[in-house]
Amino acid sequence: MKLAIEDLVDLARGAALLGTGGGGDPYIGRLMAQEAIRECGMPEIVELEDVPDDAQVFTSAMLGAPSVLIEKIASGDDVETSVRKLEERLGRRADFITPIEIGGCNSMIPIVAAARLGIPLVNADGMGRAFPELQMVTFNVYGVSATPLAMVDENLSSVVIETNNAKAAEDFARVNAVQMGLSVMISCYPMLGHELKKTGVPGTLTMALNIGRAIAEGRKSGNPAESLIAFLKTNPYYGRCKILFAGKITDLRRDTSRGFTIGECTLQAIDAQDVMKITFQNENLVAKVNGRTVAIVPDLICIMDSETAEPITTEALKYGQRVSVVGMSAAPVMRTPEALSVFGPSCFGLKEEFTPIEILHADIAEAEDVKI
Amino acid sequence: MKLAIEDLVDLARGAALLGTGGGGDPYIGRLMAQEAIRECGMPEIVELEDVPDDAQVFTSAMLGAPSVLIEKIASGDDVETSVRKLEERLGRRADFITPIEIGGCNSMIPIVAAARLGIPLVNADGMGRAFPELQMVTFNVYGVSATPLAMVDENLSSVVIETNNAKAAEDFARVNAVQMGLSVMISCYPMLGHELKKTGVPGTLTMALNIGRAIAEGRKSGNPAESLIAFLKTNPYYGRCKILFAGKITDLRRDTSRGFTIGECTLQAIDAQDVMKITFQNENLVAKVNGRTVAIVPDLICIMDSETAEPITTEALKYGQRVSVVGMSAAPVMRTPEALSVFGPSCFGLKEEFTPIEILHADIAEAEDVKI
Repeated sequence: MKLAIEDLVDLARGAALLGTGGGGDPYIGRLMAQEAIRECGMPEIVELEDVPDDAQVFTSAMLGAPSVLIEKIASGDDVETSVRKLEERLGRRADFITPIEIGGCNSMIPIVAAARLGIPLVNADGMGRAFPELQMVTFNVYGVSATPLAMVDENLSSVVIETNNAKAAEDFARVNAVQMGLSVMISCYPMLGHELKKTGVPGTLTMALNIGRAIAEGRKSGNPAESLIAFLKTNPYYGRCKILFAGKITDLRRDTSRGFTIGECTLQAIDAQDVMKITFQNENLVAKVNGRTVAIVPDLICIMDSETAEPITTEALKYGQRVSVVGMSAAPVMRTPEALSVFGPSCFGLKEEFTPIEILHADIAEAEDVKI
Repeated sequence: MKLAIEDLVDLARGAALLGTGGGGDPYIGRLMAQEAIRECGMPEIVELEDVPDDAQVFTSAMLGAPSVLIEKIASGDDVETSVRKLEERLGRRADFITPIEIGGCNSMIPIVAAARLGIPLVNADGMGRAFPELQMVTFNVYGVSATPLAMVDENLSSVVIETNNAKAAEDFARVNAVQMGLSVMISCYPMLGHELKKTGVPGTLTMALNIGRAIAEGRKSGNPAESLIAFLKTNPYYGRCKILFAGKITDLRRDTSRGFTIGECTLQAIDAQDVMKITFQNENLVAKVNGRTVAIVPDLICIMDSETAEPITTEALKYGQRVSVVGMSAAPVMRTPEALSVFGPSCFGLKEEFTPIEILHADIAEAEDVKI
């Protein structure tokens, strides 16, 4: 895959959709990526299968509450320093950077890291979406250690964490992120090429870019949401999808608490009595219409502007907005019992079990034979 | 100085007195030190002036709330691992261990570290007492960096912190200590021999031992408190001293909050109407009799059992206890304007200025010419 600086707008838009409300504002990330590319050039982007088995791969990401990321733009020095601190700890240079999550801002931070370090970026990630906690990633599900984990704040203060499990790493990272002002650059899940090949979700950078392009193309014909759905139906991960709801935001409860943006959004249908409620913890977790679940994590729930299909992050939701809500299937590797034990509904305190979107909606199931 | 395993009881008692209520329970520390000495032998103890200028010195200490230390005894593996993590970060082996504070448990943890690592312990510390926060140490006052700082919990999870000032290091260490369950082993203030010589308080291990012995000797003659005062008056640091009060604990407010043991203790004189109030944050900060200050930090305020002169830590204070309160001068290096800006009364939120104990008490001042 080749990426041009002009592609970043589409990539950011696609990443925002896959962020399902979380992952940080891609606009801020895009500005940082543009700056890094202008200064250091566009990093080479390599496919997952082309990473040598013994290459050293690090992730690079922002960690914190999206509500805060809007207010604090990072310098890029902190991105680079987080990788350097991890290199220092391991006594080994990073050969490749991989995104930990493709959703939102964290599609862009790895571009900043790869550009500044002058090393290639892998076209893959650890979920094909965004998730609020560090252990919620296929790398962890399938056996890669989250630590050593390096985190760096805007003053370049650093913390290097080592734990024996990824949830403990998340707990430590979170308290330090709060201490650091909730806008922090991290590098973690150091792994070798063969481990990334075994655990990563391939091609997600391309997918985000193409999703962003599909929305842009759809705007020309005046129906970006339908253009998006038509494109998604061709995708091996996200192909079981539909527009779940169209309506107006009539109620919004949103707190920054425990280091997250947590809350609930209520939508009223324009021409009907139907009400949708969406619960979120950075990312949208479950959507219900009149009390019935219509999509649930790890499947993707994306809120978009009803006119432009521009994805809206949880921190940007506003009372009165007219929105469409899209539901999409997660990649198969995200729906296994091992995966659900790490980021299924119960991991977010939800009482109900995961039900795939194609089971919740007869029309998706019926279309299966034809469309996928 | 030579230390025998039998000396640890006296050393712990003296360290508890210098702990001024804080520094952790020396009983727990003594058990850990005895275990380490039995396993690895007594470490060599060297005088400050004998440390080579280019030797690498690390501190070793426990960090947390004394109330919790009582409930959780550490294994010793965590003590050793904290030093190893700092060595790993610096790429240099520790040649010497120095106590960061001689007060309480932290007189003993460095013995554990030195014994297990097989390296000498320096007869010195960074305050000649105990203090609740990491930046409150002469090493910091006179220019040694607190970080890199390594901290390790009972599961051997580790965090290595780097900041550009000691107060920021304290803030990070504290949130991580809370995450670690408030009983944590740290190694920090890595410095060279010439830096320790410039910034340390020499001879404090000997002083703590001799204070403990003076109390023990006094018990034989039935008056340990007077024996203690007689001994203290010969000491270059603590020589301006007196028994400030004798009474019964009639009120006690004590919380574990923000990672500290915080509160106030009220004493009623036995044969008079006088009331003493002592405010503490791990350590005793200020003592007032009928509203008039009789001793204030960084001078030392020590609460002892009225019969045995056994020092009582803030977490062991109990309603109804009969106690004596001793006030002692801090070392001159602890009373400079630079030092007071880091651990003077205002650093603990107290409104009044530091007044040396010899100014507060005419009888101490008058005795000056004769006794010191």
